[in-house]
Amino acid sequence: MALLALSTLMLIGKAYRSGGLVRWCGVQPLACLFTSSSNMAKSKFEYVRNFETDDTCLRNCYIVVRLDGRNFHRFAEQHRFTKPNDNRALGLMSRSARSVMEELEDIVIAYGQSDEFSFVFKRTSTWFKRRASKIMTHVASQFSSSFVFYWKEFFGEQPLLYPPSFDGRVVLYPSNRNLKDYLSWRQADCHINNLYNTVFWTLVQKGGLTTAQAEDRLKGTLAADKNEILFSEFDINYNNESDLHKKGTTLIWEKRDEIVTKRMKLPNEEEKDVAVTRSRRRVEAYHCDIIGDQFWEEHPDILEDNSC
Amino acid sequence: MALLALSTLMLIGKAYRSGGLVRWCGVQPLACLFTSSSNMAKSKFEYVRNFETDDTCLRNCYIVVRLDGRNFHRFAEQHRFTKPNDNRALGLMSRSARSVMEELEDIVIAYGQSDEFSFVFKRTSTWFKRRASKIMTHVASQFSSSFVFYWKEFFGEQPLLYPPSFDGRVVLYPSNRNLKDYLSWRQADCHINNLYNTVFWTLVQKGGLTTAQAEDRLKGTLAADKNEILFSEFDINYNNESDLHKKGTTLIWEKRDEIVTKRMKLPNEEEKDVAVTRSRRRVEAYHCDIIGDQFWEEHPDILEDNSC
Amino acid sequence: MALLALSTLMLIGKAYRSGGLVRWCGVQPLACLFTSSSNMAKSKFEYVRNFETDDTCLRNCYIVVRLDGRNFHRFAEQHRFTKPNDNRALGLMSRSARSVMEELEDIVIAYGQSDEFSFVFKRTSTWFKRRASKIMTHVASQFSSSFVFYWKEFFGEQPLLYPPSFDGRVVLYPSNRNLKDYLSWRQADCHINNLYNTVFWTLVQKGGLTTAQAEDRLKGTLAADKNEILFSEFDINYNNESDLHKKGTTLIWEKRDEIVTKRMKLPNEEEKDVAVTRSRRRVEAYHCDIIGDQFWEEHPDILEDNSC
Amino acid sequence: MALLALSTLMLIGKAYRSGGLVRWCGVQPLACLFTSSSNMAKSKFEYVRNFETDDTCLRNCYIVVRLDGRNFHRFAEQHRFTKPNDNRALGLMSRSARSVMEELEDIVIAYGQSDEFSFVFKRTSTWFKRRASKIMTHVASQFSSSFVFYWKEFFGEQPLLYPPSFDGRVVLYPSNRNLKDYLSWRQADCHINNLYNTVFWTLVQKGGLTTAQAEDRLKGTLAADKNEILFSEFDINYNNESDLHKKGTTLIWEKRDEIVTKRMKLPNEEEKDVAVTRSRRRVEAYHCDIIGDQFWEEHPDILEDNSC
Repeated sequence: MALLALSTLMLIGKAYRSGGLVRWCGVQPLACLFTSSSNMAKSKFEYVRNFETDDTCLRNCYIVVRLDGRNFHRFAEQHRFTKPNDNRALGLMSRSARSVMEELEDIVIAYGQSDEFSFVFKRTSTWFKRRASKIMTHVASQFSSSFVFYWKEFFGEQPLLYPPSFDGRVVLYPSNRNLKDYLSWRQADCHINNLYNTVFWTLVQKGGLTTAQAEDRLKGTLAADKNEILFSEFDINYNNESDLHKKGTTLIWEKRDEIVTKRMKLPNEEEKDVAVTRSRRRVEAYHCDIIGDQFWEEHPDILEDNSC
Repeated sequence: MALLALSTLMLIGKAYRSGGLVRWCGVQPLACLFTSSSNMAKSKFEYVRNFETDDTCLRNCYIVVRLDGRNFHRFAEQHRFTKPNDNRALGLMSRSARSVMEELEDIVIAYGQSDEFSFVFKRTSTWFKRRASKIMTHVASQFSSSFVFYWKEFFGEQPLLYPPSFDGRVVLYPSNRNLKDYLSWRQADCHINNLYNTVFWTLVQKGGLTTAQAEDRLKGTLAADKNEILFSEFDINYNNESDLHKKGTTLIWEKRDEIVTKRMKLPNEEEKDVAVTRSRRRVEAYHCDIIGDQFWEEHPDILEDNSC
Repeated sequence: MALLALSTLMLIGKAYRSGGLVRWCGVQPLACLFTSSSNMAKSKFEYVRNFETDDTCLRNCYIVVRLDGRNFHRFAEQHRFTKPNDNRALGLMSRSARSVMEELEDIVIAYGQSDEFSFVFKRTSTWFKRRASKIMTHVASQFSSSFVFYWKEFFGEQPLLYPPSFDGRVVLYPSNRNLKDYLSWRQADCHINNLYNTVFWTLVQKGGLTTAQAEDRLKGTLAADKNEILFSEFDINYNNESDLHKKGTTLIWEKRDEIVTKRMKLPNEEEKDVAVTRSRRRVEAYHCDIIGDQFWEEHPDILEDNSC
Repeated sequence: MALLALSTLMLIGKAYRSGGLVRWCGVQPLACLFTSSSNMAKSKFEYVRNFETDDTCLRNCYIVVRLDGRNFHRFAEQHRFTKPNDNRALGLMSRSARSVMEELEDIVIAYGQSDEFSFVFKRTSTWFKRRASKIMTHVASQFSSSFVFYWKEFFGEQPLLYPPSFDGRVVLYPSNRNLKDYLSWRQADCHINNLYNTVFWTLVQKGGLTTAQAEDRLKGTLAADKNEILFSEFDINYNNESDLHKKGTTLIWEKRDEIVTKRMKLPNEEEKDVAVTRSRRRVEAYHCDIIGDQFWEEHPDILEDNSC
């Protein structure tokens, strides 16, 4: 029995130095002593918990978590993403973002473009007591595991070569105006990058320029110049390009009526199939402008009232 | 051309309200106007960046990131983990942790047990300018994507049912003593839980108790009592149980000499195969006591000098 | 010359150990060496600046600094404050708060009662780059120095026995509703305490009870009971008590027209005195309800628009 | 009685809109209703407390609070401080700092020069639960009120023209090395500024240069050049200048034996006066080098052990 007791002894620093050698220690009941010591050991160390700091997000502010792919330029090369946009990759990003919205609580809108995705938690959310670290690591974790999990759905037999990584950050926005401006900022970024990339890769893929030549050609050009190059040289109207590429992806919750057939038995009747309408909340994707007012007027429930 | 210009118009809030209607606007070169407007649009929104706060970790402190599985009790059930420990799951946890150490910078030691893993960044690390959010989301992301990526290596054909999630937190420790006490705290926790779980599942699996009965039996018992139950009733010496389960997994960097054969040609000689010794740093796993001094004395390079 | 140089030597750690002994060191021009060393010394230590952390207050939020007197119960005793309210002390608190509003920037409203005072900086303030530490220490400092400086104006020949201390804190409020609720919270606190104190000291001073008896008498009483005691036993209508005591003090900026006499000379006229109306901003004190809407409707300029 | 009840009514927003008009409301006992409402009022607003954030200082780090005079250039001009150093002002700064050390807890060392003073709280301090805001505002407040309170002791009949202000900040240092380097940084700063100011004002006061000419003369000079100017042109050995000016002021706690006469009566003896030695802790001032090791070796109790 004393022999068993020694196994717990190992938890105690000094004692362990004797080498972990299991010796027979006589008849005295050492067990209690060591047992309580091993428990003491844990409580002795527990003071380290006090080094954790509170990172509660200020109340009544929108909590935005933005993820960015790490070294995704290289990742895209190695997985032969099509240029300027790879619809498989964009689809996988959105699928992963949807998983985040479904598994985490209180996300009211998410917006993604390229290798980034932003998630907006409602102002009044108390998820994980609004602790910033819990919130952002959960978003980063759920998104990343989903990205690998759903890879096959979008890339089929093309293998994922290594596990990718996304970093995240938390930003707080006190007002609806600030939040909308944040989303507008990301969508304006999407527009500017996509216009550039569209012209750049058109010059390379259709115009036969090297990437260096294309870069040179675009140096100092304004949006209008880029539109003009596409139109006059390649007969492409940028306006007709895919909204997915021009506007990015906006995910929101929407109630949809679903008709389900249920087998029911009413009193004094035979059992029969009945069509039942059920309202279900699900994540819907939009590829539209979210800078102007129209989107917000059409979806008045996304944001909470400023007067709270 | 003006038609092209209008596509960029969509970025501007008020204008968009007219409905996205593409009209011919006459001969005036509107492009510049709208182009500059769309650029203005982005810069107009960019003020939102100032809402980001600086979360730099205090210098000269160890940065510890601890991950915890979310709802892993349920996850373990659904994936039929063996009780009290599933070596496939523990192997996958360690494999994912190794991936974190290899892909991220400045991690000097990692310790894991059950569904948690702690990563220690060196005191002097300047990775990502010591920004807490960047550091912890990268750890959470790399770990999570690796967990799914390497699943098959440990679970073979048993499918992963859904993408799992891990939350993380950052804690700073100013001294070597504090850091060691943190790791001791986690290992003491491992010991206490594993001893409990070992007895609990022995009572159920070998003793024929229900889980409720086993719980009841263990209520109020000390470590010595648990050792005694194992020994006298089941002839199990807890001391002989697997170190992986009793001590958890400690990962550190170690230099190992590798002998590589290189084909070389020396001057005035024929080309031939030469054995070359190369020193390579790689992550090694230990399942030993890290509470006592021995481990730290044997690996003096893990921690930096307190006098800095 | 080398002798002079040695004086700067003292800045260098190791060298100093030789004992600060001033020796003649030969002909070599040591000065440059030590000079540059002493400059190096400073730059060598300057890394410690990086341990400062950024504590910028979130944008677009009201910044509230609340000061509380430290050990003011004892301070009041020692300076023989009248009970339940000492108008000299309340006047001095307000005078000090006015000094804070006048010397610091962007304070739009301040509210005080008893030994506490709250200062509200406007949402868009960029004073001291919104650094919380700078803001709150300036408030605490200016208030404290003013309290001693203006003591005589309120206490005359009664001496201040020792320098008092006030602690402070910063709280951010994202919306007008939150800010008003904060001020309402403080005024509700004022009401509850003042009603209690009024009855308590009436029972002691007019009712002849000991403080212990008065405390006992009031245990468990509601506001109505307290009103009733005052009215039926002492013929005091609490409603007629001073608003300064019931409502505390609210300080705001107001534009007032001032008529100033200026000596002017118009063309083709003799020089003469002219009455000129000048608009001047000054701090005004109110002792009124700020929980209801009336005050805010009458002073619509205090708060910024929620829609920003 | 209902009339009394109305006084508490004022606390409730909507009701107050009726104009604060005190009307006789009939016989029904409204008091209870309003009473409970007024209490509800406070609890209804109390949610605003949750907007306070936790700013606990990381454990096991030195907490340094540095104060800086606000607009002290102007303050010095207006109060006709002597140049380059005013001993009255330096004395008042030290007196105020001593007051801070005596009134607050756990300050182990303070260092001041010019219009700044740094206060170091011990690593293990739990004063005010290590809340940064409480600590720094208390320091700023106690210092500022003391500065006004003790003015007369140093400036005699010269009046203080207005209440001065000091801002503060908190910095954490995890190791003894970091803390000493912080103090060295401030003393190196003292040296560099004092050397400059000494030469500058000597050129002006004794050399007859204008301030612009003196500034010009010193542009680009090294410490050795400045020493040389003092020595060769004004026969001043900078080394002999006052240590107060060259080294600043260091305040520490020291135990001193005090001999007190006590009247005692021993058994079987007559009552008589006995000299009793009592050890008393008091704040002592040094004007010596704190960059080198000597000071720290002579006062080994100031800093705690690094190995904790």
